[in-house]
Amino acid sequence: MSTPTLSSLTPEARRLLESQNIELPSWAFGNSGTRFKVFGTPGTPRDPYEKLADAAQVHQYTGAASKVSLHIPWDLVDDWADLRRYAEDLGIEIGAINSNVFQDDDYKYGSLCNPDKAIRRKAVDAHRRCLDIMSATGSTDLKIWLADGTNYPGQDSIRERQDRLAESLQQIYADLGPDQRLILEYKFFEPAMYHTDVPDWGTSLLHCLALGDKASVVLDTGHHAPGTNIEFIVAQLLRVGRLGAFDFNSRFYADDDLIVGAADPFQLFRIMNEIVAGGALDPDSGVAFVLDQCHNLEAKIPGEIRSITNVQEATAKALLVDRVALAQAQRNGDVLGANGILMDAYNTDVRPLLGELRESQGLAPDPMAAFLASGYLERISAERVGGQQASWAA
Amino acid sequence: MSTPTLSSLTPEARRLLESQNIELPSWAFGNSGTRFKVFGTPGTPRDPYEKLADAAQVHQYTGAASKVSLHIPWDLVDDWADLRRYAEDLGIEIGAINSNVFQDDDYKYGSLCNPDKAIRRKAVDAHRRCLDIMSATGSTDLKIWLADGTNYPGQDSIRERQDRLAESLQQIYADLGPDQRLILEYKFFEPAMYHTDVPDWGTSLLHCLALGDKASVVLDTGHHAPGTNIEFIVAQLLRVGRLGAFDFNSRFYADDDLIVGAADPFQLFRIMNEIVAGGALDPDSGVAFVLDQCHNLEAKIPGEIRSITNVQEATAKALLVDRVALAQAQRNGDVLGANGILMDAYNTDVRPLLGELRESQGLAPDPMAAFLASGYLERISAERVGGQQASWAA
Amino acid sequence: MSTPTLSSLTPEARRLLESQNIELPSWAFGNSGTRFKVFGTPGTPRDPYEKLADAAQVHQYTGAASKVSLHIPWDLVDDWADLRRYAEDLGIEIGAINSNVFQDDDYKYGSLCNPDKAIRRKAVDAHRRCLDIMSATGSTDLKIWLADGTNYPGQDSIRERQDRLAESLQQIYADLGPDQRLILEYKFFEPAMYHTDVPDWGTSLLHCLALGDKASVVLDTGHHAPGTNIEFIVAQLLRVGRLGAFDFNSRFYADDDLIVGAADPFQLFRIMNEIVAGGALDPDSGVAFVLDQCHNLEAKIPGEIRSITNVQEATAKALLVDRVALAQAQRNGDVLGANGILMDAYNTDVRPLLGELRESQGLAPDPMAAFLASGYLERISAERVGGQQASWAA
Amino acid sequence: MSTPTLSSLTPEARRLLESQNIELPSWAFGNSGTRFKVFGTPGTPRDPYEKLADAAQVHQYTGAASKVSLHIPWDLVDDWADLRRYAEDLGIEIGAINSNVFQDDDYKYGSLCNPDKAIRRKAVDAHRRCLDIMSATGSTDLKIWLADGTNYPGQDSIRERQDRLAESLQQIYADLGPDQRLILEYKFFEPAMYHTDVPDWGTSLLHCLALGDKASVVLDTGHHAPGTNIEFIVAQLLRVGRLGAFDFNSRFYADDDLIVGAADPFQLFRIMNEIVAGGALDPDSGVAFVLDQCHNLEAKIPGEIRSITNVQEATAKALLVDRVALAQAQRNGDVLGANGILMDAYNTDVRPLLGELRESQGLAPDPMAAFLASGYLERISAERVGGQQASWAA
Repeated sequence: MSTPTLSSLTPEARRLLESQNIELPSWAFGNSGTRFKVFGTPGTPRDPYEKLADAAQVHQYTGAASKVSLHIPWDLVDDWADLRRYAEDLGIEIGAINSNVFQDDDYKYGSLCNPDKAIRRKAVDAHRRCLDIMSATGSTDLKIWLADGTNYPGQDSIRERQDRLAESLQQIYADLGPDQRLILEYKFFEPAMYHTDVPDWGTSLLHCLALGDKASVVLDTGHHAPGTNIEFIVAQLLRVGRLGAFDFNSRFYADDDLIVGAADPFQLFRIMNEIVAGGALDPDSGVAFVLDQCHNLEAKIPGEIRSITNVQEATAKALLVDRVALAQAQRNGDVLGANGILMDAYNTDVRPLLGELRESQGLAPDPMAAFLASGYLERISAERVGGQQASWAA
Repeated sequence: MSTPTLSSLTPEARRLLESQNIELPSWAFGNSGTRFKVFGTPGTPRDPYEKLADAAQVHQYTGAASKVSLHIPWDLVDDWADLRRYAEDLGIEIGAINSNVFQDDDYKYGSLCNPDKAIRRKAVDAHRRCLDIMSATGSTDLKIWLADGTNYPGQDSIRERQDRLAESLQQIYADLGPDQRLILEYKFFEPAMYHTDVPDWGTSLLHCLALGDKASVVLDTGHHAPGTNIEFIVAQLLRVGRLGAFDFNSRFYADDDLIVGAADPFQLFRIMNEIVAGGALDPDSGVAFVLDQCHNLEAKIPGEIRSITNVQEATAKALLVDRVALAQAQRNGDVLGANGILMDAYNTDVRPLLGELRESQGLAPDPMAAFLASGYLERISAERVGGQQASWAA
Repeated sequence: MSTPTLSSLTPEARRLLESQNIELPSWAFGNSGTRFKVFGTPGTPRDPYEKLADAAQVHQYTGAASKVSLHIPWDLVDDWADLRRYAEDLGIEIGAINSNVFQDDDYKYGSLCNPDKAIRRKAVDAHRRCLDIMSATGSTDLKIWLADGTNYPGQDSIRERQDRLAESLQQIYADLGPDQRLILEYKFFEPAMYHTDVPDWGTSLLHCLALGDKASVVLDTGHHAPGTNIEFIVAQLLRVGRLGAFDFNSRFYADDDLIVGAADPFQLFRIMNEIVAGGALDPDSGVAFVLDQCHNLEAKIPGEIRSITNVQEATAKALLVDRVALAQAQRNGDVLGANGILMDAYNTDVRPLLGELRESQGLAPDPMAAFLASGYLERISAERVGGQQASWAA
Repeated sequence: MSTPTLSSLTPEARRLLESQNIELPSWAFGNSGTRFKVFGTPGTPRDPYEKLADAAQVHQYTGAASKVSLHIPWDLVDDWADLRRYAEDLGIEIGAINSNVFQDDDYKYGSLCNPDKAIRRKAVDAHRRCLDIMSATGSTDLKIWLADGTNYPGQDSIRERQDRLAESLQQIYADLGPDQRLILEYKFFEPAMYHTDVPDWGTSLLHCLALGDKASVVLDTGHHAPGTNIEFIVAQLLRVGRLGAFDFNSRFYADDDLIVGAADPFQLFRIMNEIVAGGALDPDSGVAFVLDQCHNLEAKIPGEIRSITNVQEATAKALLVDRVALAQAQRNGDVLGANGILMDAYNTDVRPLLGELRESQGLAPDPMAAFLASGYLERISAERVGGQQASWAA
């Protein structure tokens, strides 16, 4: 395949690429770190408004990131209508509302699975508050990731915690508005170190099936055991119509939360290939695509821009796969031929094509260069002095 | 806890321990090995009859292994009624029938998931033959483990293979007799190296749910990603009533198929603890407990005896857990206390108790010593000369 | 093996068990947590003196934990002679001095490997300060664990960082006093997520060999890839005389820093078995045995007591291995026999024997029960009010 | 970076790319498989001569694979001078001689580490035979990979096996001719399942250091724990001058032996980047680059051709890295910038450049297409009928 241009894409492929939109996490703009140290950066936002302003920059230069997920209570404000208006003025909107039920002292032994009924009720209420915020901001997705689990065998009953979880989720689900849905994330381990209450897609799916049609699974690339074939899970969840959201990031070891595509760009391509093959790239597919990353060392806004372009490149490659030839080679048992067709798309340099696409949308062909030249980073470093910088963990 | 005796057990715990029965795999008595080499042993069986004879030895000395799983076509015989009678004369019976659809050249690209419809049909028919053998031998479980998968990205469509799998399973399921059930095993990887068509419990469960009440999941300890919390899966599958069988073995790295309890005896205890807590130890629970191991270096009959006693020890410890105190400590958030109650049972030496139990059943207290003293190994080494030794892979 | 008593031990085994001493980490008594949350506990120490007081409790009830490692700058005090005296009055002494060169903002891109020469010099100087503290406190071990590494491929040169590390270590090594040594810890990953500058025992050993005889490797059980055979590394480092210290803790997934023996007690036994077989249990062996754990959820002093007794139990079992019979079975290629001899010791309940040993030393047979009954926890919870609780990460 | 052409390369980079030569393994042309099944292919070689003929095809179309490693005794012939001549007539030569000391029944409990002195001697003699073959064929590398290890804790003494290994290696090393060297491979696990006698690079290096200058380490990409940073090991071994050979293949899970670059092409690029940065690409560097793969499902000659082109592509990308800009960004702590420079090279499509290079060497630009069009596969399928096909495991 010679270097492809925009015209190498089918009209449908072009439409999908143009309409691709990836949600940004408000917390990626705050400081973050490891249990050993959180390093600060000049210009880090000090409130949700500044986070939105930074997120708007990512959208301004990529044209592909018009939504921002909030994390509650990290992003609590007094006036939701005002925040919503502020976002709209910036040309963006509020995306999923993420509940945080792991940083209050009461949640030491869990939230929705806690052995103490009063604490479970408190955690359910925290989710109800999120539903209110959704109503106030126009958000449709309640995204639940739980830190619940145990550190030692015997610490609590695995089985009873499942039952408590089912009951708590049901109470939240019952309060969903007609246009709202609940999406449930799973994670292999961390912060719990012996058992996690929603450790795998099977567990998340079982709870979603029990809840009803408005519940779906959230897949985060960093939340699996080493070696897990993530594109298989994507294909499987699409097959049963329960992939609610896909959280992008990348990892070498655990839940490293690195820039998507940084650790294994070929895996990202294989995932996007299943997304494309399963028809989930379409904005109407019901699958939300979200970044969920930490920028511990690198600059945060550029880190998000790089993430968006990485996803776009993987997507463009997936859209270039010759699916007719692929299906033919697969039917023929031509192992090397079929693999070669996939690799041919992967090995293609799609950056020129994406530059063209951006220019056709009135954007600079290289979002990173354009942003860095804008002086925005220097400006916020100078202006945002004093106050408490937002942090991933606070 | 001082050294417990039989009277330390509640009557119900004693009943459960006495009635515990673990199925033996016929293939554990044949030679086995790695892709590098299969080492032979004097006295290795040359046909299914000799395998049954060896298995009967394990039961004779442990009193806890009265069933033998067969693998088809490895264990094909001309006259099933005769084999059944032979087993009964030995005091044992035929357990699950395992289908082997991975060693015929036609299955190079899969069996129930193969892109070629004719090969899928052949694989379905192979399972129908197993159903016939079940009817002829009194077996009730059709156990399906598939080697299906791909080695290279793009080699075949992950999604379409799922659809083919669902269709093939449905055809088999439709032919189940009233007292027969289908149990579907999952495996993380091997022999397929890029993707496996039934890689995790979620996938197996989805297919079982689609099939109906007579389909359940088989959990094999060696078939998971590194770090997977297996007792969680046990608890979850018991919770939804779909744990069909539990395959015992152990592993340090991949699917090592070592003697159960040899690599991580504490994990085995935690698993048995969930089994006990979930009421699945009762013979009426519908959960089949099976060894699925290879004895590549060690003697095979003694290897199976060690396996049975290892499971018994883990079970006895699980039955000794003070569940009232444990529940109390869990409710109190007493992390160390709760963990300590579990560890107290684990750290107990239950071998004297089990020796007592065996003597109360008319058995020698140490099955391994009794078997080794019997001269059986020497006898078969001398007698079984000539012919083709059975092998795990043939 | 029937339940062993003190007299089951050979005199030499008894001597070794009696003289076993495990160093405690000062930071285990402060609060600790994950990147998500640090939960506090009433009674947590607010300064190094209170940490020593708590550590002394562990020694008082176990008789096997007379040393305390310090972490600098976490444990900085104005008057080292005073702290030393305080320790001696408590019946304990100062153990290894751990350098912390990962929490100052300057160390964002590394310490001894930093591309900036001035920062490397600062980090070297931080170690020189530790050497001074060693002189002032009578400590002989400078323990170096580095957070150095990178998060993204290309971020820095792997090779040049090794050269910088070698140079920095040489500068520190040059300043070691005649009775001081440098021990270098390795870690697979975290906090660095792409590459770690001392990721494995091979790297640590290479640097130690280049430095000279006073440099040795520190092995921490939680710092390996999944599946790593740790007892092999113990045997190998003992073989070449370079095991400087062994850090106890346990893990299910990553560097979980759980109570030693909590996740895989059989692994702990196998490790102690190599320690015993390699003659490293002897206090003169030059191997320091240290706890390095976090008690995120459980009470801290009891957590340390449980850790000590877990190590003692594993050690007692290792001392009970019938090494003559084992060597014989190994020579005979008796796989099951040799394994069985090891498992026989492991399956033994050594708690009564250890209770006897403690009583012979004038201690209560059950250190945990005795400590919990002492009222110390209640006392410090009431007394230690106000001030800033010490935290693992500050 | 726009699509690069040959002239984008510096003259030195072009020289290195032109001179790149990757050794082929004779066994890749025979049938191979898993412990479950070895599938055969029409046209598979039946003797070493046919393997060499197939290997010569790979060289004919790629111009980059002029050497063939042999495996003894798999590749034993009566007349080595004749085989050598045959190779030379084909335009290729004999590369490393690999010893196989794992398929004789005597090696059940190990070869160079076996507890039985007579078997160790037999294994040493097998290596001496390899040295003779090296002399007869002009090969300079004795490549040792051992299957030695144990399956069960206690089965043998880890420590004593190391001592036996050291002694056995010394005997072999003593017989090396002046132009011969010994290269020692390590492997994390398989076929041994509890412990492997040379499990990691540290162990291999320790033995090499003890042997002397003519001993070096072999790194095989598939022989590591999950998550291991292989390029780090490359950099470290180059730094100490002990990287003897690099075995290419790829893996998703264990030692999958898939086509290099098939599972993680970015990892392959990172490895080649360290190779280039460390000056090891030069043919005089003393590092042998070798394929070590199995083609279980795919056609074997095309599989090897794909492997060669994959390595060439990764190499060309590594040669395009702007090392001046990279060093500058690294010095500046510009995390995203430095990473971006590396990714810029990786994301480049170098296939046109490599096509140009081949044409400049008188080769077809697309080796795979040219080979497939040649009719060779059809010819051998028709001609090689009867006889015993060579197999990886025999």
